[in-house]
Amino acid sequence: MGNAAHRIRLGMVGGGQGAFIGAVHRIAARIDDQYELVAGALSSDPARAGASAQELGIAPERSYASFEEMALAESKRPDGIEAVAIVTPNHLHGAAARAFLAAGIHVICDKPLTTTVSEAEQLVEAVQQSAKIFVLTHNYSGYPMIRQAREMVANGDLGDIRVVQAEYAQDWLTERSELSGNKQAEWRTDPKRSGAGGAIGDIGTHAYHLAGFVSGLEAEAVLAQLTSFVEGRALDDDVQIMLRYKGGARGMLWASQVAVGNENGLKLRVYGSKGGLEWSQSDPNYLWFTRFGEPKQLITRGGAGAGASAARVTRIPGGHPEGYLEGFATIYTEAARAIRAARNGEKPDAAVLYPTVEDGLEGMRFIEASVASSKAGNVWTNLR
Amino acid sequence: MGNAAHRIRLGMVGGGQGAFIGAVHRIAARIDDQYELVAGALSSDPARAGASAQELGIAPERSYASFEEMALAESKRPDGIEAVAIVTPNHLHGAAARAFLAAGIHVICDKPLTTTVSEAEQLVEAVQQSAKIFVLTHNYSGYPMIRQAREMVANGDLGDIRVVQAEYAQDWLTERSELSGNKQAEWRTDPKRSGAGGAIGDIGTHAYHLAGFVSGLEAEAVLAQLTSFVEGRALDDDVQIMLRYKGGARGMLWASQVAVGNENGLKLRVYGSKGGLEWSQSDPNYLWFTRFGEPKQLITRGGAGAGASAARVTRIPGGHPEGYLEGFATIYTEAARAIRAARNGEKPDAAVLYPTVEDGLEGMRFIEASVASSKAGNVWTNLR
Amino acid sequence: MGNAAHRIRLGMVGGGQGAFIGAVHRIAARIDDQYELVAGALSSDPARAGASAQELGIAPERSYASFEEMALAESKRPDGIEAVAIVTPNHLHGAAARAFLAAGIHVICDKPLTTTVSEAEQLVEAVQQSAKIFVLTHNYSGYPMIRQAREMVANGDLGDIRVVQAEYAQDWLTERSELSGNKQAEWRTDPKRSGAGGAIGDIGTHAYHLAGFVSGLEAEAVLAQLTSFVEGRALDDDVQIMLRYKGGARGMLWASQVAVGNENGLKLRVYGSKGGLEWSQSDPNYLWFTRFGEPKQLITRGGAGAGASAARVTRIPGGHPEGYLEGFATIYTEAARAIRAARNGEKPDAAVLYPTVEDGLEGMRFIEASVASSKAGNVWTNLR
Amino acid sequence: MGNAAHRIRLGMVGGGQGAFIGAVHRIAARIDDQYELVAGALSSDPARAGASAQELGIAPERSYASFEEMALAESKRPDGIEAVAIVTPNHLHGAAARAFLAAGIHVICDKPLTTTVSEAEQLVEAVQQSAKIFVLTHNYSGYPMIRQAREMVANGDLGDIRVVQAEYAQDWLTERSELSGNKQAEWRTDPKRSGAGGAIGDIGTHAYHLAGFVSGLEAEAVLAQLTSFVEGRALDDDVQIMLRYKGGARGMLWASQVAVGNENGLKLRVYGSKGGLEWSQSDPNYLWFTRFGEPKQLITRGGAGAGASAARVTRIPGGHPEGYLEGFATIYTEAARAIRAARNGEKPDAAVLYPTVEDGLEGMRFIEASVASSKAGNVWTNLR
Repeated sequence: MGNAAHRIRLGMVGGGQGAFIGAVHRIAARIDDQYELVAGALSSDPARAGASAQELGIAPERSYASFEEMALAESKRPDGIEAVAIVTPNHLHGAAARAFLAAGIHVICDKPLTTTVSEAEQLVEAVQQSAKIFVLTHNYSGYPMIRQAREMVANGDLGDIRVVQAEYAQDWLTERSELSGNKQAEWRTDPKRSGAGGAIGDIGTHAYHLAGFVSGLEAEAVLAQLTSFVEGRALDDDVQIMLRYKGGARGMLWASQVAVGNENGLKLRVYGSKGGLEWSQSDPNYLWFTRFGEPKQLITRGGAGAGASAARVTRIPGGHPEGYLEGFATIYTEAARAIRAARNGEKPDAAVLYPTVEDGLEGMRFIEASVASSKAGNVWTNLR
Repeated sequence: MGNAAHRIRLGMVGGGQGAFIGAVHRIAARIDDQYELVAGALSSDPARAGASAQELGIAPERSYASFEEMALAESKRPDGIEAVAIVTPNHLHGAAARAFLAAGIHVICDKPLTTTVSEAEQLVEAVQQSAKIFVLTHNYSGYPMIRQAREMVANGDLGDIRVVQAEYAQDWLTERSELSGNKQAEWRTDPKRSGAGGAIGDIGTHAYHLAGFVSGLEAEAVLAQLTSFVEGRALDDDVQIMLRYKGGARGMLWASQVAVGNENGLKLRVYGSKGGLEWSQSDPNYLWFTRFGEPKQLITRGGAGAGASAARVTRIPGGHPEGYLEGFATIYTEAARAIRAARNGEKPDAAVLYPTVEDGLEGMRFIEASVASSKAGNVWTNLR
Repeated sequence: MGNAAHRIRLGMVGGGQGAFIGAVHRIAARIDDQYELVAGALSSDPARAGASAQELGIAPERSYASFEEMALAESKRPDGIEAVAIVTPNHLHGAAARAFLAAGIHVICDKPLTTTVSEAEQLVEAVQQSAKIFVLTHNYSGYPMIRQAREMVANGDLGDIRVVQAEYAQDWLTERSELSGNKQAEWRTDPKRSGAGGAIGDIGTHAYHLAGFVSGLEAEAVLAQLTSFVEGRALDDDVQIMLRYKGGARGMLWASQVAVGNENGLKLRVYGSKGGLEWSQSDPNYLWFTRFGEPKQLITRGGAGAGASAARVTRIPGGHPEGYLEGFATIYTEAARAIRAARNGEKPDAAVLYPTVEDGLEGMRFIEASVASSKAGNVWTNLR
Repeated sequence: MGNAAHRIRLGMVGGGQGAFIGAVHRIAARIDDQYELVAGALSSDPARAGASAQELGIAPERSYASFEEMALAESKRPDGIEAVAIVTPNHLHGAAARAFLAAGIHVICDKPLTTTVSEAEQLVEAVQQSAKIFVLTHNYSGYPMIRQAREMVANGDLGDIRVVQAEYAQDWLTERSELSGNKQAEWRTDPKRSGAGGAIGDIGTHAYHLAGFVSGLEAEAVLAQLTSFVEGRALDDDVQIMLRYKGGARGMLWASQVAVGNENGLKLRVYGSKGGLEWSQSDPNYLWFTRFGEPKQLITRGGAGAGASAARVTRIPGGHPEGYLEGFATIYTEAARAIRAARNGEKPDAAVLYPTVEDGLEGMRFIEASVASSKAGNVWTNLR
């Protein structure tokens, strides 16, 4: 709406009819009016690709059969896309991203970055060589109260961090729904499309990224126990992890897709020598903060106590909840800021905090080390 | 994004730089990609109007100095706006709406509808004569769990409704911020721009509309006590009301802008002979339901227990919170469905539940009767 | 346990087998080991009286057929009771209390005080003439966080009080259980035993007392609407009230026994020019406090932020919840302190805050004025 | 109160003035009026012992200088104590318990049972030989909603248990308060009095016991990481544990005394193939239950949905919270039932569920295995 001359021309790979996350990316791109979707390779099924493109108002000639074709064709158009959103299953992320980077197109990519560390390392190199923007949609880091938490840790309000408790509990894979036609379940439980991790890749990486994003800590080693509780499932549906951070902090991370009664129970708690923070994604506009020896405080998005980091990514007043889509939109809007800066040859905005390809590599190391630790009998395994 | 050929061409009156609610309307219009903002009379201050239009990508020739000019000019363009969003202070709603209706343009208008019942009645007539769509943004009725609540009451899950408890508590007018440069506070406490009601018009009408929307009950009479706690304030900042509904149900409604610790504490509780429902706008994805003699249930947006009404206006899975903007967007998207139906000469979609001009008249009756009741010493006053 | 020489010898009127509140009083009396139950007129049914006494270890000769007999006999014994707990239905409170006061025995009496204001006035006079201790068990005022709230208001932490919102919602009378053998329901819905008020006497008086206890405000007038939603019920099961306090504060009070999903939903919110407080009896160890313009604080019993008033009535560390029985015990223990002071001819302890016969009279005025207001068509009715 | 002839004569070891847990045991013993405290060895400091005894109404000749003396003297009195409560620091539990068992006196003992597994094994043997009742006060198992949870798991409402998440977070040892005169902190951080475990013994064992009590699962092995975050502290103040249960369920347990903002954050979550349960000690009257594919239910103590196990240990109606002391009292009252049964030569009541000496041994195995696992570099360590 409005601002047509300045919107970033966006393409999308994946996200055709029936996909969940594609629609989320599109709404996220629209909320702050920074993008215009003009091209797509929306499905490997040509009929679905075409129908999806039509529904989204993409011109027929810009609906492509493959990402390769799209990267090539768009890079030649004077009005070609400036950025692409990659929202396919995991196994396609790497190849697609490299194709667009090679074509001089910025990339916004869903997580986890790839299916292996070595592919992730290649992609890091590709990004560096291309000098293009690469944004990984660890979207939860876009929540204002997560930004607030990060700022408070960085400001020293918690003192030295000692303990990080992260969890992401769901229940949608409690039964073997991958056998009964649930597309989301099918590819997420299939090693060919997901990689070596199930729950750990799908949701564990989110919790892991968030823990690092807020605490500012670098993990050194993991000790993991991955379990497939549902019989016949090839990948883990429950993940228990201990974490060692540089400097001596300890972490625990639990991710489960069989925890009945949990929808998207992503929670983060960080405790230091002076204070503690608690946050839950289901109620994202609240951040609980306790200074040791004082009453617990409820800091709200848009309310008293929220600082500059939260304010920068807040759209509406306190008490009017912003949700998942707004947090996701913040990642898109920060990507847009970086893309515009690149357009103008300017330095990137320091306040822009979107996750990068390096975060993606870090996530892949986390998955691989955890899978290795679990296979080796739950032993400490270095991340690098 | 996408679908450019089918988007509804939208104009906006008010909502220039510095205004809060204009930006909300624009995001709401974008979320489901149903509108394109192409014209505006964004401010009575010409410099601000121009700057705002430019920022929003509105062509200079479609940035107007007044709504009268805009209605006239747009109605003559082949690509003129099909709908207008009116987001000015209350005293301008009526005149602006009538101008666009007369020009054959659909209207989406902020609440309260007007500043008097008689002006509201004129507007109802104008809408009826125009046969245009008129949507009043009592946006809270767009929340999925409010739709769920309405459906449950209509299905008889609560039995005969006995008690309705509605409240909307804020604290932003605890001190006399209208004197210290707060624009929002200035016009909302000014009878010339707000009408005869302060808190009752600004937030009381939301609570009143929601109570009726969910319970399906028609109010017959009010007994109100309006208070201005902050010295020197011309309009009420706290409202206590008893309500009598047709059929014998009783209501209480409290609205306050001086309740320290409340941001946007809109809450609704409905109790019947068989069950009870409780909902809070701060945590809008939850609906508490108790069947008499059974444990309380937590029904979640996108979760088990949510029915067709909620599903229809739900974008993402349970546990990923949708918020205020998404609820607002639902009103816009339902307006779009109605406008498209009108375009095509089709019957309106029965599942579309946006608030209408009649709801706006009802709100004005509520305000006027409450003000009258309060002035007369808190006596029962009929609404019609 | 222990301290036998110093325990106060206690009798009880009512509270035989099958009664709810008698057992509560006995536990409350035991918790801090200040009393020994040695006599009783536990039931008007002689068999039940005897069996109850035996079960409670009361010597057969001190199990009486009537309170008159008990008052007379015990006053003559050298080891006679020093205090009596009256836990009968309301209509017997006055006569029983007067009998014990006349016999020189301190009285701990359940609420409401009597069934009429005039009887309450007689009782006030009787107490004054007797110079005995009289304690009314508005037990909720014994909760530590209620004491904290009262202290904060008194300290000026809230500034000038503007708004008081009190409610007590239950659902146990949603259906006509008084016809199906529920003894508690039978007498509470019977005007002969309850007096002119149903829900208003049973629970409304608790909310009213608590509002005054915390806010320190004196109510001047009420405007009430009492309803019997359940067909055939003689007394109110839902109460809506507006309150005017001396000094200009406004109150709303809702009490209901038909609000499905509420067990004992007693809630109090107090808002002033500088701050606000919120408390709920279901979660009594928490007090929410907001200073205007600062983040909301969670003050906990035994935690940081709790002051001297709370500490005085706190038994165990924060995070280990104390509940209803402990709050009730605090009233008993404060009564014991007063009784010991009287024993020793000392001045009463200023920190002892149990409700008195004057509070009981105030409650009766509240009931009578509310019933009168409701009958007169919901008009303002002075309390005195 | 009352029932003097039938009360169990109780003695106490430890718990003199200034001790926290002794007062808790005494209130717990009083609440249901099953005990009379008549003897004590309340402190190793004679002056404090005497003053404490006097304050508690214990006759001077029954205030002893040591538990050995007390066991001997009381066993010879015709009115000697029938049971003793041992509430000393951990290192004295074993010797004291054996002394009383040898004297034919039932024992109620605080946790952890001893300071080593071998001492615990001796005590198990001593209990078996004595044929006396031995009760370990893992008091949290007395909460009604914990009984409810256990019943639901046993009934199969959760299906096969897969995941157990237990935690107990406090913050009172965030700083080195053992150096600044905090008696509770002193002995709890002193290996001589606490044994080899700090937080793991003090609170970790509670979480571990509760997890087993509710889930009905037997742990086979632990993998633990114990940390002392506060410099100079000899024992752990933070504990991270993975648990393997017989049958394949996996557990995580976190206990911390440095988690700022947590008072007594004991939480238990249990997930199975059909349902999930969630409970928090801070709000103990609530149990959250989800049957897979249905809305979450809130089961309340005394409310709809609570079954026989909860009802048996519930004193007052739903919505009137019972707390920590009532749960503790339930353990005492169940001990009393067992002691009375033993008195009468009757079989113990199957519904009585107090923790036993075997639970104590299990707790010691948990501590020792965890300490060993941690020292060995966080490796799986069998519990037996």
